[in-house]
Amino acid sequence: MPILNKDMTLCISLSARPSNNGTRFHNHLYEALGLNWIYKAFAPTDLAQAIAGVRGLGIRGCAISMPYKEDVIALVDRMDPSATAIDSVNTIVNDDGVLTAYNTDYSAIAQLIERNALDPASSVLLRGSGGMAKATAAAFRDAGFTDVTIIARTEKAGRPLAELYGFAWAADVGDRTADIIVNITPIGMAGGAEADSLSFPEAAIDAATTVFDVVALPAETPLVRAGRAAGKTVITGAEVATLQALEQFVLYTGIRPSDEQVRAAEEFMRVQ
Amino acid sequence: MPILNKDMTLCISLSARPSNNGTRFHNHLYEALGLNWIYKAFAPTDLAQAIAGVRGLGIRGCAISMPYKEDVIALVDRMDPSATAIDSVNTIVNDDGVLTAYNTDYSAIAQLIERNALDPASSVLLRGSGGMAKATAAAFRDAGFTDVTIIARTEKAGRPLAELYGFAWAADVGDRTADIIVNITPIGMAGGAEADSLSFPEAAIDAATTVFDVVALPAETPLVRAGRAAGKTVITGAEVATLQALEQFVLYTGIRPSDEQVRAAEEFMRVQ
Repeated sequence: MPILNKDMTLCISLSARPSNNGTRFHNHLYEALGLNWIYKAFAPTDLAQAIAGVRGLGIRGCAISMPYKEDVIALVDRMDPSATAIDSVNTIVNDDGVLTAYNTDYSAIAQLIERNALDPASSVLLRGSGGMAKATAAAFRDAGFTDVTIIARTEKAGRPLAELYGFAWAADVGDRTADIIVNITPIGMAGGAEADSLSFPEAAIDAATTVFDVVALPAETPLVRAGRAAGKTVITGAEVATLQALEQFVLYTGIRPSDEQVRAAEEFMRVQ
Repeated sequence: MPILNKDMTLCISLSARPSNNGTRFHNHLYEALGLNWIYKAFAPTDLAQAIAGVRGLGIRGCAISMPYKEDVIALVDRMDPSATAIDSVNTIVNDDGVLTAYNTDYSAIAQLIERNALDPASSVLLRGSGGMAKATAAAFRDAGFTDVTIIARTEKAGRPLAELYGFAWAADVGDRTADIIVNITPIGMAGGAEADSLSFPEAAIDAATTVFDVVALPAETPLVRAGRAAGKTVITGAEVATLQALEQFVLYTGIRPSDEQVRAAEEFMRVQ
Protein backbone atom coordinates (compact mmCIF):
# COMPACT_ATOMS: atom_id res chain seq x y z
CA MET A 1 0.00 0.00 0.00
CA PRO A 2 1.15 3.55 -0.63
CA ILE A 3 1.78 5.88 2.30
CA LEU A 4 -1.57 7.44 3.13
CA ASN A 5 -2.07 11.10 2.33
CA LYS A 6 -4.74 13.78 2.61
CA ASP A 7 -5.57 13.86 -1.10
CA MET A 8 -6.70 10.24 -1.38
CA THR A 9 -10.20 9.72 -2.75
CA LEU A 10 -12.21 7.47 -0.43
CA CYS A 11 -14.67 4.75 -1.43
CA ILE A 12 -16.48 2.67 1.19
CA SER A 13 -19.01 -0.10 1.67
CA LEU A 14 -21.92 -0.26 4.09
CA SER A 15 -22.98 -3.66 5.37
CA ALA A 16 -24.24 -5.07 8.65
CA ARG A 17 -21.59 -7.79 8.38
CA PRO A 18 -18.78 -6.56 6.12
CA SER A 19 -16.41 -8.96 4.42
CA ASN A 20 -12.87 -8.06 3.39
CA ASN A 21 -13.56 -8.72 -0.31
CA GLY A 22 -14.29 -5.18 -1.49
CA THR A 23 -11.53 -3.67 0.64
CA ARG A 24 -8.95 -6.04 -0.85
CA PHE A 25 -10.25 -6.01 -4.44
CA HIS A 26 -10.50 -2.23 -4.79
CA ASN A 27 -7.32 -1.32 -2.91
CA HIS A 28 -5.36 -3.83 -4.98
CA LEU A 29 -6.59 -2.24 -8.20
CA TYR A 30 -5.92 1.29 -6.90
CA GLU A 31 -2.33 0.29 -6.22
CA ALA A 32 -1.93 -1.58 -9.51
CA LEU A 33 -3.21 1.43 -11.45
CA GLY A 34 -1.28 3.99 -9.38
CA LEU A 35 -4.47 5.71 -8.22
CA ASN A 36 -4.31 7.87 -5.09
CA TRP A 37 -7.49 6.21 -3.80
CA ILE A 38 -8.41 4.20 -0.73
CA TYR A 39 -11.26 1.80 0.09
CA LYS A 40 -12.63 0.59 3.41
CA ALA A 41 -15.66 -1.40 4.55
CA PHE A 42 -17.92 -0.06 7.30
CA ALA A 43 -20.69 -1.52 9.46
CA PRO A 44 -22.73 1.67 9.92
CA THR A 45 -24.52 2.46 13.17
CA ASP A 46 -27.16 4.48 11.31
CA LEU A 47 -27.78 4.30 7.55
CA ALA A 48 -29.12 7.86 7.06
CA GLN A 49 -26.19 9.36 8.98
CA ALA A 50 -23.73 7.19 7.06
CA ILE A 51 -25.17 8.42 3.74
CA ALA A 52 -25.03 12.00 5.07
CA GLY A 53 -21.36 11.28 5.70
CA VAL A 54 -20.92 10.12 2.09
CA ARG A 55 -22.18 13.57 1.04
CA GLY A 56 -20.49 15.63 3.74
CA LEU A 57 -17.08 13.98 3.48
CA GLY A 58 -17.16 13.83 -0.31
CA ILE A 59 -16.82 10.02 -0.34
CA ARG A 60 -16.77 9.11 -4.05
CA GLY A 61 -18.36 5.68 -4.03
CA CYS A 62 -20.30 3.50 -1.63
CA ALA A 63 -21.18 -0.17 -1.98
CA ILE A 64 -24.43 -1.16 -0.28
CA SER A 65 -24.94 -4.65 1.12
CA MET A 66 -27.44 -6.42 3.35
CA PRO A 67 -29.68 -5.21 4.91
CA TYR A 68 -29.56 -1.72 3.38
CA LYS A 69 -30.22 -2.36 -0.33
CA GLU A 70 -33.84 -1.22 -0.24
CA ASP A 71 -33.76 1.31 2.64
CA VAL A 72 -31.09 3.35 0.90
CA ILE A 73 -33.37 4.17 -2.05
CA ALA A 74 -35.02 6.99 -0.06
CA LEU A 75 -31.61 8.55 0.65
CA VAL A 76 -30.22 8.95 -2.88
CA ASP A 77 -30.92 11.57 -5.55
CA ARG A 78 -31.12 9.46 -8.70
CA MET A 79 -31.80 5.83 -9.60
CA ASP A 80 -29.99 4.23 -12.52
CA PRO A 81 -32.15 1.76 -14.53
CA SER A 82 -30.04 -1.10 -13.12
CA ALA A 83 -31.39 -0.24 -9.65
CA THR A 84 -34.97 0.58 -10.69
CA ALA A 85 -35.15 -2.77 -12.51
CA ILE A 86 -35.15 -4.55 -9.16
CA ASP A 87 -35.86 -1.75 -6.65
CA SER A 88 -32.56 -2.59 -5.01
CA VAL A 89 -29.29 -0.67 -4.74
CA ASN A 90 -25.81 -2.08 -4.26
CA THR A 91 -23.74 0.91 -5.46
CA ILE A 92 -23.86 4.69 -4.98
CA VAL A 93 -21.77 7.13 -6.98
CA ASN A 94 -21.27 10.65 -5.59
CA ASP A 95 -20.86 13.28 -8.31
CA ASP A 96 -20.20 16.53 -6.45
CA GLY A 97 -22.95 15.83 -3.94
CA VAL A 98 -25.44 14.19 -6.32
CA LEU A 99 -25.87 10.55 -5.31
CA THR A 100 -26.82 8.11 -8.09
CA ALA A 101 -27.79 4.54 -7.20
CA TYR A 102 -26.93 1.51 -9.32
CA ASN A 103 -27.23 -2.24 -9.03
CA THR A 104 -24.11 -3.90 -10.38
CA ASP A 105 -25.34 -7.39 -9.39
CA TYR A 106 -28.03 -6.94 -12.01
CA SER A 107 -25.51 -5.53 -14.50
CA ALA A 108 -23.04 -8.36 -13.83
CA ILE A 109 -25.66 -11.08 -14.41
CA ALA A 110 -26.88 -9.29 -17.55
CA GLN A 111 -23.31 -9.22 -18.85
CA LEU A 112 -22.74 -12.90 -18.09
CA ILE A 113 -25.92 -13.82 -19.98
CA GLU A 114 -24.62 -11.88 -22.95
CA ARG A 115 -20.99 -13.07 -22.75
CA ASN A 116 -22.08 -16.70 -22.65
CA ALA A 117 -24.50 -16.05 -25.54
CA LEU A 118 -27.38 -17.63 -23.65
CA ASP A 119 -30.34 -18.02 -26.03
CA PRO A 120 -33.52 -16.17 -24.90
CA ALA A 121 -35.54 -19.03 -26.38
CA SER A 122 -34.06 -21.37 -23.76
CA SER A 123 -36.06 -22.71 -20.86
CA VAL A 124 -34.75 -21.62 -17.45
CA LEU A 125 -35.11 -22.82 -13.86
CA LEU A 126 -34.21 -20.14 -11.30
CA ARG A 127 -33.97 -21.58 -7.78
CA GLY A 128 -34.22 -18.94 -5.03
CA SER A 129 -36.32 -15.98 -3.92
CA GLY A 130 -34.06 -13.44 -2.16
CA GLY A 131 -32.67 -10.12 -3.38
CA MET A 132 -30.13 -11.78 -5.64
CA ALA A 133 -32.89 -13.93 -7.18
CA LYS A 134 -34.71 -10.71 -8.02
CA ALA A 135 -31.60 -9.33 -9.76
CA THR A 136 -31.18 -12.60 -11.64
CA ALA A 137 -34.85 -12.85 -12.69
CA ALA A 138 -34.84 -9.24 -13.88
CA ALA A 139 -31.66 -9.77 -15.91
CA PHE A 140 -33.14 -12.85 -17.62
CA ARG A 141 -36.44 -11.05 -18.25
CA ASP A 142 -34.63 -8.02 -19.70
CA ALA A 143 -32.51 -10.31 -21.91
CA GLY A 144 -35.77 -11.56 -23.46
CA PHE A 145 -36.22 -14.89 -21.67
CA THR A 146 -39.86 -15.89 -21.20
CA ASP A 147 -39.82 -19.61 -20.43
CA VAL A 148 -38.62 -19.19 -16.86
CA THR A 149 -39.76 -20.99 -13.71
CA ILE A 150 -38.93 -19.61 -10.26
CA ILE A 151 -38.36 -22.45 -7.79
CA ALA A 152 -38.99 -21.35 -4.19
CA ARG A 153 -40.23 -23.47 -1.35
CA THR A 154 -42.31 -20.63 0.13
CA GLU A 155 -45.19 -19.61 -2.12
CA LYS A 156 -45.38 -16.22 -0.36
CA ALA A 157 -41.87 -15.38 -1.56
CA GLY A 158 -41.81 -17.27 -4.86
CA ARG A 159 -45.12 -16.47 -6.48
CA PRO A 160 -44.95 -12.64 -6.27
CA LEU A 161 -41.39 -12.74 -7.59
CA ALA A 162 -42.49 -14.93 -10.52
CA GLU A 163 -45.52 -12.74 -11.23
CA LEU A 164 -43.42 -9.57 -11.12
CA TYR A 165 -41.48 -10.81 -14.14
CA GLY A 166 -44.24 -12.79 -15.85
CA PHE A 167 -42.62 -16.12 -14.95
CA ALA A 168 -44.01 -19.40 -13.57
CA TRP A 169 -43.57 -20.54 -9.98
CA ALA A 170 -43.03 -23.98 -8.49
CA ALA A 171 -42.29 -25.05 -4.92
CA ASP A 172 -39.74 -27.75 -5.82
CA VAL A 173 -37.49 -28.71 -8.69
CA GLY A 174 -39.01 -32.21 -8.66
CA ASP A 175 -38.32 -33.85 -12.00
CA ARG A 176 -38.27 -30.52 -13.85
CA THR A 177 -35.50 -29.94 -16.37
CA ALA A 178 -34.51 -26.89 -18.46
CA ASP A 179 -31.80 -25.69 -20.83
CA ILE A 180 -30.42 -23.35 -18.19
CA ILE A 181 -30.46 -24.06 -14.46
CA VAL A 182 -29.55 -21.31 -11.99
CA ASN A 183 -29.00 -21.63 -8.25
CA ILE A 184 -29.57 -18.52 -6.15
CA THR A 185 -30.09 -20.26 -2.79
CA PRO A 186 -27.44 -20.76 -0.08
CA ILE A 187 -27.20 -24.44 -1.06
CA GLY A 188 -23.54 -25.21 -1.68
CA MET A 189 -22.35 -22.10 0.15
CA ALA A 190 -19.20 -22.47 2.28
CA GLY A 191 -20.00 -22.61 5.97
CA GLY A 192 -23.73 -23.08 5.33
CA ALA A 193 -25.91 -25.94 6.55
CA GLU A 194 -26.03 -27.40 3.03
CA ALA A 195 -22.44 -26.69 1.96
CA ASP A 196 -22.01 -30.19 0.50
CA SER A 197 -25.42 -30.41 -1.17
CA LEU A 198 -26.24 -30.18 -4.86
CA SER A 199 -28.78 -27.44 -5.49
CA PHE A 200 -30.27 -29.33 -8.48
CA PRO A 201 -30.85 -33.08 -8.97
CA GLU A 202 -28.33 -34.86 -11.21
CA ALA A 203 -31.06 -35.43 -13.81
CA ALA A 204 -31.60 -31.65 -14.12
CA ILE A 205 -27.87 -31.12 -14.50
CA ASP A 206 -27.64 -33.81 -17.17
CA ALA A 207 -30.53 -32.30 -19.12
CA ALA A 208 -29.19 -28.73 -19.01
CA THR A 209 -26.79 -27.10 -21.46
CA THR A 210 -25.81 -24.33 -19.00
CA VAL A 211 -25.28 -24.52 -15.24
CA PHE A 212 -25.14 -21.21 -13.37
CA ASP A 213 -24.45 -20.98 -9.63
CA VAL A 214 -24.75 -17.49 -8.14
CA VAL A 215 -23.16 -18.70 -4.87
CA ALA A 216 -19.69 -17.06 -4.81
CA LEU A 217 -18.01 -18.87 -1.96
CA PRO A 218 -16.58 -21.35 -2.64
CA ALA A 219 -15.92 -20.64 -6.32
CA GLU A 220 -16.28 -24.40 -6.91
CA THR A 221 -19.63 -25.32 -5.38
CA PRO A 222 -20.96 -28.87 -5.70
CA LEU A 223 -23.21 -27.61 -8.55
CA VAL A 224 -20.28 -25.97 -10.38
CA ARG A 225 -18.17 -29.12 -10.00
CA ALA A 226 -21.01 -31.31 -11.24
CA GLY A 227 -21.62 -28.99 -14.20
CA ARG A 228 -17.94 -29.04 -15.18
CA ALA A 229 -17.75 -32.82 -14.80
CA ALA A 230 -20.74 -33.17 -17.13
CA GLY A 231 -19.15 -30.84 -19.73
CA LYS A 232 -21.78 -28.12 -19.43
CA THR A 233 -21.34 -24.38 -19.96
CA VAL A 234 -20.67 -23.26 -16.38
CA ILE A 235 -21.11 -19.76 -14.95
CA THR A 236 -19.99 -19.24 -11.36
CA GLY A 237 -20.94 -16.92 -8.54
CA ALA A 238 -17.27 -15.94 -8.31
CA GLU A 239 -17.63 -14.49 -11.83
CA VAL A 240 -20.70 -12.54 -10.70
CA ALA A 241 -18.89 -11.26 -7.61
CA THR A 242 -15.82 -10.16 -9.53
CA LEU A 243 -17.80 -8.61 -12.35
CA GLN A 244 -20.08 -6.63 -10.03
CA ALA A 245 -17.06 -5.36 -8.06
CA LEU A 246 -15.33 -4.46 -11.33
CA GLU A 247 -18.41 -2.53 -12.49
CA GLN A 248 -18.34 -0.63 -9.19
CA PHE A 249 -14.67 0.13 -9.76
CA VAL A 250 -15.42 1.46 -13.27
CA LEU A 251 -18.36 3.56 -12.00
CA TYR A 252 -16.21 5.09 -9.24
CA THR A 253 -12.98 5.72 -11.14
CA GLY A 254 -14.05 5.89 -14.80
CA ILE A 255 -11.17 3.48 -15.53
CA ARG A 256 -11.57 -0.08 -16.84
CA PRO A 257 -8.63 -2.22 -15.68
CA SER A 258 -7.15 -4.89 -17.93
CA ASP A 259 -8.28 -8.52 -17.56
CA GLU A 260 -4.86 -9.29 -16.11
CA GLN A 261 -5.23 -6.57 -13.46
CA VAL A 262 -8.72 -7.80 -12.58
CA ARG A 263 -7.46 -11.39 -12.25
CA ALA A 264 -4.67 -10.25 -9.91
CA ALA A 265 -7.11 -8.24 -7.76
CA GLU A 266 -9.51 -11.20 -7.66
CA GLU A 267 -6.67 -13.49 -6.57
CA PHE A 268 -5.64 -10.99 -3.86
CA MET A 269 -9.27 -10.81 -2.71
CA ARG A 270 -9.54 -14.59 -2.40
CA VAL A 271 -6.27 -15.27 -0.59
CA GLN A 272 -6.98 -13.80 2.84
CA MET B 1 1.57 0.77 5.66
CA PRO B 2 -0.29 -2.44 6.42
CA ILE B 3 -2.63 -3.92 3.83
CA LEU B 4 -5.99 -2.25 4.38
CA ASN B 5 -8.77 -4.31 5.88
CA LYS B 6 -12.40 -3.96 6.89
CA ASP B 7 -11.73 -3.94 10.63
CA MET B 8 -9.54 -0.84 10.68
CA THR B 9 -10.69 1.94 13.01
CA LEU B 10 -10.88 5.24 11.16
CA CYS B 11 -9.90 8.67 12.45
CA ILE B 12 -10.21 11.77 10.28
CA SER B 13 -9.71 15.51 10.21
CA LEU B 14 -12.03 18.21 8.88
CA SER B 15 -10.50 21.36 7.48
CA ALA B 16 -11.21 23.71 4.59
CA ARG B 17 -7.55 23.38 3.57
CA PRO B 18 -6.15 20.14 4.97
CA SER B 19 -2.42 19.60 5.40
CA ASN B 20 -0.75 16.20 5.36
CA ASN B 21 0.55 16.57 8.92
CA GLY B 22 -2.16 14.70 10.80
CA THR B 23 -2.42 11.97 8.18
CA ARG B 24 1.31 11.30 8.36
CA PHE B 25 1.73 11.70 12.14
CA HIS B 26 -1.16 9.44 13.15
CA ASN B 27 -0.66 6.74 10.51
CA HIS B 28 3.03 6.53 11.40
CA LEU B 29 2.18 5.95 15.05
CA TYR B 30 -0.53 3.41 14.18
CA GLU B 31 2.03 1.42 12.24
CA ALA B 32 4.76 1.80 14.88
CA LEU B 33 2.38 0.56 17.58
CA GLY B 34 0.87 -2.20 15.44
CA LEU B 35 -2.62 -0.71 15.64
CA ASN B 36 -5.19 -1.72 13.01
CA TRP B 37 -6.15 1.96 12.57
CA ILE B 38 -6.15 4.39 9.69
CA TYR B 39 -6.22 8.20 9.47
CA LYS B 40 -7.16 10.51 6.63
CA ALA B 41 -7.75 14.26 6.24
CA PHE B 42 -10.96 15.54 4.62
CA ALA B 43 -12.14 18.89 3.28
CA PRO B 44 -15.87 18.49 4.02
CA THR B 45 -18.54 19.86 1.68
CA ASP B 46 -20.95 20.26 4.60
CA LEU B 47 -19.94 20.26 8.28
CA ALA B 48 -23.23 18.94 9.73
CA GLN B 49 -23.31 16.07 7.23
CA ALA B 50 -19.66 15.29 7.88
CA ILE B 51 -20.32 15.08 11.64
CA ALA B 52 -23.39 12.91 10.91
CA GLY B 53 -20.95 10.69 9.02
CA VAL B 54 -18.65 10.52 12.05
CA ARG B 55 -21.63 9.13 13.99
CA GLY B 56 -23.11 6.96 11.23
CA LEU B 57 -19.83 5.38 10.12
CA GLY B 58 -18.52 4.96 13.66
CA ILE B 59 -15.46 7.12 13.00
CA ARG B 60 -13.52 7.08 16.30
CA GLY B 61 -11.85 10.47 16.23
CA CYS B 62 -12.08 13.69 14.28
CA ALA B 63 -9.69 16.64 14.30
CA ILE B 64 -11.35 20.00 13.61
CA SER B 65 -9.46 22.82 11.92
CA MET B 66 -10.28 26.18 10.36
CA PRO B 67 -12.97 27.34 9.82
CA TYR B 68 -15.05 24.79 11.76
CA LYS B 69 -13.72 25.13 15.33
CA GLU B 70 -16.67 27.17 16.61
CA ASP B 71 -19.48 25.93 14.31
CA VAL B 72 -18.93 22.33 15.38
CA ILE B 73 -19.87 23.11 19.01
CA ALA B 74 -23.59 22.86 18.14
CA LEU B 75 -23.07 19.39 16.63
CA VAL B 76 -21.42 17.55 19.54
CA ASP B 77 -22.93 15.99 22.66
CA ARG B 78 -20.42 17.00 25.33
CA MET B 79 -17.76 19.68 25.80
CA ASP B 80 -14.57 18.90 27.70
CA PRO B 81 -13.26 21.80 29.87
CA SER B 82 -10.37 22.23 27.41
CA ALA B 83 -12.93 23.24 24.75
CA THR B 84 -15.23 25.27 26.99
CA ALA B 85 -12.20 27.26 28.23
CA ILE B 86 -11.96 28.91 24.80
CA ASP B 87 -15.30 28.04 23.15
CA SER B 88 -13.34 26.32 20.41
CA VAL B 89 -13.02 22.66 19.42
CA ASN B 90 -10.14 21.00 17.63
CA THR B 91 -10.83 17.37 18.55
CA ILE B 92 -13.90 15.13 18.74
CA VAL B 93 -13.92 11.68 20.32
CA ASN B 94 -16.75 9.29 19.42
CA ASP B 95 -17.61 6.87 22.24
CA ASP B 96 -20.31 4.59 20.81
CA GLY B 97 -22.14 7.52 19.24
CA VAL B 98 -21.55 10.06 22.01
CA LEU B 99 -19.37 12.86 20.64
CA THR B 100 -17.17 14.70 23.15
CA ALA B 101 -15.30 17.84 22.06
CA TYR B 102 -11.82 18.79 23.27
CA ASN B 103 -9.25 21.45 22.51
CA THR B 104 -5.78 19.93 22.48
CA ASP B 105 -4.18 23.24 21.39
CA TYR B 106 -5.17 24.60 24.77
CA SER B 107 -3.99 21.40 26.50
CA ALA B 108 -0.67 21.46 24.62
CA ILE B 109 0.08 25.07 25.58
CA ALA B 110 -0.94 24.38 29.18
CA GLN B 111 1.46 21.42 29.25
CA LEU B 112 4.32 23.46 27.78
CA ILE B 113 3.83 26.17 30.41
CA GLU B 114 4.08 23.47 33.08
CA ARG B 115 6.99 21.53 31.53
CA ASN B 116 9.06 24.69 31.20
CA ALA B 117 8.16 25.66 34.77
CA LEU B 118 7.08 29.14 33.69
CA ASP B 119 6.48 31.25 36.81
CA PRO B 120 2.91 32.66 37.08
CA ALA B 121 4.40 35.78 38.66
CA SER B 122 6.17 36.57 35.36
CA SER B 123 5.09 39.39 33.09
CA VAL B 124 3.89 38.21 29.65
CA LEU B 125 3.42 39.79 26.23
CA LEU B 126 1.07 37.79 23.98
CA ARG B 127 1.15 39.06 20.40
CA GLY B 128 -1.88 37.98 18.32
CA SER B 129 -5.68 37.86 18.46
CA GLY B 130 -6.88 34.79 16.47
CA GLY B 131 -8.21 31.44 17.68
CA MET B 132 -4.77 30.23 18.73
CA ALA B 133 -4.21 33.47 20.69
CA LYS B 134 -7.41 32.66 22.59
CA ALA B 135 -6.12 29.17 23.42
CA THR B 136 -2.79 30.65 24.53
CA ALA B 137 -4.35 33.41 26.63
CA ALA B 138 -6.70 30.92 28.32
CA ALA B 139 -3.81 28.56 29.10
CA PHE B 140 -1.77 31.38 30.69
CA ARG B 141 -4.80 32.64 32.62
CA ASP B 142 -5.60 29.11 33.89
CA ALA B 143 -1.95 28.63 34.90
CA GLY B 144 -2.31 31.64 37.20
CA PHE B 145 -0.66 34.39 35.15
CA THR B 146 -2.14 37.85 35.72
CA ASP B 147 0.47 40.31 34.41
CA VAL B 148 -0.34 39.69 30.73
CA THR B 149 -0.66 42.17 27.88
CA ILE B 150 -2.35 41.19 24.62
CA ILE B 151 -0.68 42.95 21.67
CA ALA B 152 -3.04 43.26 18.69
CA ARG B 153 -3.06 45.99 16.08
CA THR B 154 -6.87 45.96 15.82
CA GLU B 155 -8.53 47.16 19.01
CA LYS B 156 -11.79 45.42 17.98
CA ALA B 157 -10.03 42.05 18.11
CA GLY B 158 -7.49 42.69 20.87
CA ARG B 159 -9.45 44.48 23.57
CA PRO B 160 -12.33 41.94 23.91
CA LEU B 161 -9.79 39.09 24.00
CA ALA B 162 -7.82 40.86 26.75
CA GLU B 163 -10.97 41.68 28.73
CA LEU B 164 -12.20 38.09 28.46
CA TYR B 165 -9.19 36.92 30.47
CA GLY B 166 -8.69 40.02 32.62
CA PHE B 167 -5.54 41.06 30.74
CA ALA B 168 -4.33 44.40 29.37
CA TRP B 169 -4.37 45.34 25.70
CA ALA B 170 -1.95 47.34 23.57
CA ALA B 171 -1.87 47.99 19.83
CA ASP B 172 1.91 47.65 19.42
CA VAL B 173 4.85 46.12 21.23
CA GLY B 174 6.61 49.49 21.12
CA ASP B 175 9.34 49.50 23.76
CA ARG B 176 7.46 47.11 26.02
CA THR B 177 9.41 44.24 27.59
CA ALA B 178 8.36 41.23 29.68
CA ASP B 179 9.77 38.05 31.23
CA ILE B 180 7.90 35.91 28.68
CA ILE B 181 7.20 36.97 25.09
CA VAL B 182 4.84 34.91 22.95
CA ASN B 183 4.17 35.27 19.23
CA ILE B 184 0.81 34.03 17.95
CA THR B 185 0.73 36.07 14.70
CA PRO B 186 1.75 34.78 11.23
CA ILE B 187 4.98 36.81 11.48
CA GLY B 188 7.86 34.42 10.75
CA MET B 189 5.58 31.81 9.16
CA ALA B 190 6.96 30.00 6.10
CA GLY B 191 5.38 31.27 2.90
CA GLY B 192 3.83 34.29 4.62
CA ALA B 193 4.38 37.94 3.73
CA GLU B 194 6.55 38.40 6.83
CA ALA B 195 8.41 35.07 6.77
CA ASP B 196 11.76 36.74 7.45
CA SER B 197 10.54 39.21 10.06
CA LEU B 198 11.11 39.13 13.79
CA SER B 199 7.79 39.21 15.65
CA PHE B 200 9.35 41.08 18.61
CA PRO B 201 12.03 43.82 18.66
CA GLU B 202 15.51 42.71 19.67
CA ALA B 203 15.24 44.75 22.86
CA ALA B 204 12.18 42.73 23.93
CA ILE B 205 14.01 39.49 23.17
CA ASP B 206 17.04 40.61 25.16
CA ALA B 207 14.92 41.56 28.15
CA ALA B 208 12.92 38.29 28.19
CA THR B 209 13.86 35.05 29.96
CA THR B 210 11.52 32.93 27.80
CA VAL B 211 10.74 33.22 24.07
CA PHE B 212 7.70 31.28 22.83
CA ASP B 213 6.71 31.21 19.15
CA VAL B 214 3.43 29.42 18.41
CA VAL B 215 4.17 29.49 14.64
CA ALA B 216 4.88 25.84 13.76
CA LEU B 217 6.29 26.16 10.25
CA PRO B 218 9.18 26.55 10.03
CA ALA B 219 10.21 25.02 13.37
CA GLU B 220 13.06 27.58 13.42
CA THR B 221 11.33 30.95 12.93
CA PRO B 222 13.38 34.18 13.10
CA LEU B 223 12.09 34.65 16.69
CA VAL B 224 13.09 31.10 17.70
CA ARG B 225 16.55 31.57 16.17
CA ALA B 226 17.01 34.92 17.89
CA GLY B 227 15.86 33.46 21.22
CA ARG B 228 18.29 30.55 20.93
CA ALA B 229 21.14 32.87 19.92
CA ALA B 230 20.47 35.00 23.00
CA GLY B 231 20.46 31.91 25.27
CA LYS B 232 16.81 32.21 26.28
CA THR B 233 14.42 29.43 27.24
CA VAL B 234 12.77 28.76 23.86
CA ILE B 235 9.41 27.08 23.23
CA THR B 236 8.48 26.43 19.59
CA GLY B 237 5.26 26.11 17.63
CA ALA B 238 6.54 22.75 16.41
CA GLU B 239 6.39 21.56 20.03
CA VAL B 240 2.79 22.83 20.30
CA ALA B 241 1.84 21.11 17.03
CA THR B 242 3.37 17.77 18.00
CA LEU B 243 2.00 17.87 21.52
CA GLN B 244 -1.54 18.69 20.41
CA ALA B 245 -1.45 15.90 17.81
CA LEU B 246 -0.07 13.52 20.44
CA GLU B 247 -2.90 14.44 22.83
CA GLN B 248 -5.38 13.69 20.04
CA PHE B 249 -3.68 10.33 19.51
CA VAL B 250 -3.97 9.52 23.22
CA LEU B 251 -7.63 10.60 23.34
CA TYR B 252 -8.48 8.42 20.31
CA THR B 253 -6.49 5.28 21.14
CA GLY B 254 -6.03 5.42 24.90
CA ILE B 255 -2.35 4.67 24.29
CA ARG B 256 0.56 7.03 25.08
CA PRO B 257 3.45 6.34 22.69
CA SER B 258 7.05 6.56 23.90
CA ASP B 259 9.03 9.78 23.34
CA GLU B 260 11.09 7.89 20.76
CA GLN B 261 7.95 6.86 18.83
CA VAL B 262 6.62 10.43 18.95
CA ARG B 263 9.94 11.80 17.66
CA ALA B 264 9.89 9.33 14.76
CA ALA B 265 6.28 10.23 13.86
CA GLU B 266 7.14 13.94 14.08
CA GLU B 267 10.12 13.42 11.78
CA PHE B 268 7.93 11.47 9.32
CA MET B 269 5.35 14.27 9.45
CA ARG B 270 7.98 16.93 8.65
CA VAL B 271 9.75 15.15 5.78
CA GLN B 272 7.10 15.28 3.07
